[in-house]
Amino acid sequence: MTTPFTIFKTDGHARTGALSTAHGVIRTPAFMPVGTAATVKAMMPEAVKATGADIILGNTYHLMLRPGPERIAKLGGLHKFMHWDGPILTDSGGFQVMSLAKLRRITENAVTFQSHLDGTSYELPPERAIEIQHLLGSDISMALDECTPYPATEDEAATSMRLSMRWAERSKKAFVTRNGYAVFGIVQGGVYPMLREESCAALKSIGFDGYAVGGLAVGEGQQVMFDVLDATMPHLPPDKPRYLMGVGKPDDIIGAVLRGVDMFDCVIPTRSGRNARAYTHEGEKNIRNARYAEDARPLEEGCPCPACAGFSRAYLHHLFKAGEMLGPMLLTAHNLTFYQILMQGLRDAVAGRRLAAFAADFLARYRVRISDLETDANS
Amino acid sequence: MTTPFTIFKTDGHARTGALSTAHGVIRTPAFMPVGTAATVKAMMPEAVKATGADIILGNTYHLMLRPGPERIAKLGGLHKFMHWDGPILTDSGGFQVMSLAKLRRITENAVTFQSHLDGTSYELPPERAIEIQHLLGSDISMALDECTPYPATEDEAATSMRLSMRWAERSKKAFVTRNGYAVFGIVQGGVYPMLREESCAALKSIGFDGYAVGGLAVGEGQQVMFDVLDATMPHLPPDKPRYLMGVGKPDDIIGAVLRGVDMFDCVIPTRSGRNARAYTHEGEKNIRNARYAEDARPLEEGCPCPACAGFSRAYLHHLFKAGEMLGPMLLTAHNLTFYQILMQGLRDAVAGRRLAAFAADFLARYRVRISDLETDANS
Repeated sequence: MTTPFTIFKTDGHARTGALSTAHGVIRTPAFMPVGTAATVKAMMPEAVKATGADIILGNTYHLMLRPGPERIAKLGGLHKFMHWDGPILTDSGGFQVMSLAKLRRITENAVTFQSHLDGTSYELPPERAIEIQHLLGSDISMALDECTPYPATEDEAATSMRLSMRWAERSKKAFVTRNGYAVFGIVQGGVYPMLREESCAALKSIGFDGYAVGGLAVGEGQQVMFDVLDATMPHLPPDKPRYLMGVGKPDDIIGAVLRGVDMFDCVIPTRSGRNARAYTHEGEKNIRNARYAEDARPLEEGCPCPACAGFSRAYLHHLFKAGEMLGPMLLTAHNLTFYQILMQGLRDAVAGRRLAAFAADFLARYRVRISDLETDANS
Repeated sequence: MTTPFTIFKTDGHARTGALSTAHGVIRTPAFMPVGTAATVKAMMPEAVKATGADIILGNTYHLMLRPGPERIAKLGGLHKFMHWDGPILTDSGGFQVMSLAKLRRITENAVTFQSHLDGTSYELPPERAIEIQHLLGSDISMALDECTPYPATEDEAATSMRLSMRWAERSKKAFVTRNGYAVFGIVQGGVYPMLREESCAALKSIGFDGYAVGGLAVGEGQQVMFDVLDATMPHLPPDKPRYLMGVGKPDDIIGAVLRGVDMFDCVIPTRSGRNARAYTHEGEKNIRNARYAEDARPLEEGCPCPACAGFSRAYLHHLFKAGEMLGPMLLTAHNLTFYQILMQGLRDAVAGRRLAAFAADFLARYRVRISDLETDANS
């Protein structure tokens, strides 16, 4: 087995386990901070590790445009380039092509597009997507897919999904099997249970080291997302890792773990951190809010992150008011720490077969008050 | 003595020693990183310490506008607020009022101005400047001065300097003497040796814990600055620390140490770092230059900073090209480390009575090539 996956314990549909890769073990359920352009924004690599992250995600689309996969390979691969010695998962580029690139065109052979940076034209067939990830040295490569837009009719979703399945087969074929390196397929099919089931069957017959659920968190709302997971999970092999792409907020993650998801990635903790929004067990706080201007308490009592260990809410408030870079640095570290503490809590709860209670307790405390998110310019 | 200053060794006019304050010892010659708004930009406080800095500088002008000295005092003082437990020197606000504030007006009593942030009017008499620094909890407070503009006629410089001397007397009077806390006077007098001598005499008769040389590095050029130092240093008490404000580039610092200066502050290493400019023993490099795009070497071989210990020039180049925050973070850490290594080198050289050789060797290697500073947009 290229990347052994061991499930230690289950609790209902939820599982906790470990996925072994060339660069180390990923404890699941796992949250992967996003390191788009070969850096988790505003974080030193060792600070990312200190939050408790086992694995980070890199974006194939961004890296293929700049600095380019051949250049990264020449410099020793992505791990060495960005000084991260743990596992790295790279997406296939499909999602960013859809959301960022210009003049996108999809044919049977490939997606073609123009760079959002400088207009350069690129052709990305599945084989090149896999080659790029090989050049980067990714521990986990993703098959190229078309991220089906939302909303889509059943016909549109079917056509898109079936193209992704043919690309999945070509991706698998292009992937060079090595010990410690995995390739994951991506389930598509929009919000249509039969299409999701068909997609699972197609991927299983190809055979992947793990299975991702794609095309969610694109505007369909949490309940629809959970419904799609309910319709999808039973059709995935129970002994392989399952990855819900681009998700999500803490309550999204909890709901998905309850449904059997093992891996997550999302820009929310990092992007929110750069925008003065902090995640705490009491919900989200906008640290720009005037109520924090003289608040001597840490963001969250007992949190081991650098922001909470050293600074008051008043100081964090000041940093954002003054436009100081240390504000995004500290809140990013806090949010990533918060997410990793949540994942550790989920792993422990599954191991102790008390996940339902953990989830209920977390969600009862976790309330987003609109007043907390307002910004007061007069502070 | 409120802040004991011990000179261990001298070499020509140069000295190496230690200044003891309430928050620790400052090894001299010392370089103080600038923490304008209660943060050394892009740096965690422990990372600043890790560069080798004993003391940082805070800007009274910025802190009085935002978040305000009373608020910082309420939150436990500047050390606690910004989580820096080493010594802090604060300037008096005079220089920033001149360079940043609007509608500046100077009377015998005070400088009045409008905030560059929101137009609020402030009146800053010397007593308030000292009170603000007391509220902040500064280890070393500076007397309020008028930073004489450059160029200025001898009459203008004399009038300005004499006002500063009257303000120095009021500043000293307002300062509450406590063990471990110092107040420094500031020599003014423009480029006129007789005025500098008169200013030194005035300050000495008031009696300060240390003496700063102000009004330099404002466009007069290095040779004029050195000439002014040559005309000023002999008139300062040899047993008190001497601080050259706002200086400078590495070669400025070396020249000033040779002339007997003990302390420095400057935004150059931090500001340059944020703008892709790196200081090395071979001179300055603009890491955006295309020549670094595939350069696998560290910025500087053997440098212990996080940028050089973990990353290639190619990666740093990529970070700045991609507009990633980690670029400024890493180059700031490198530049501050470079400056502290220079200061340690100067201290060791003075202690070993080989400063002339050290300076000659450093300056022979340290060459700024214009080609290194060019940015190539096509990289």
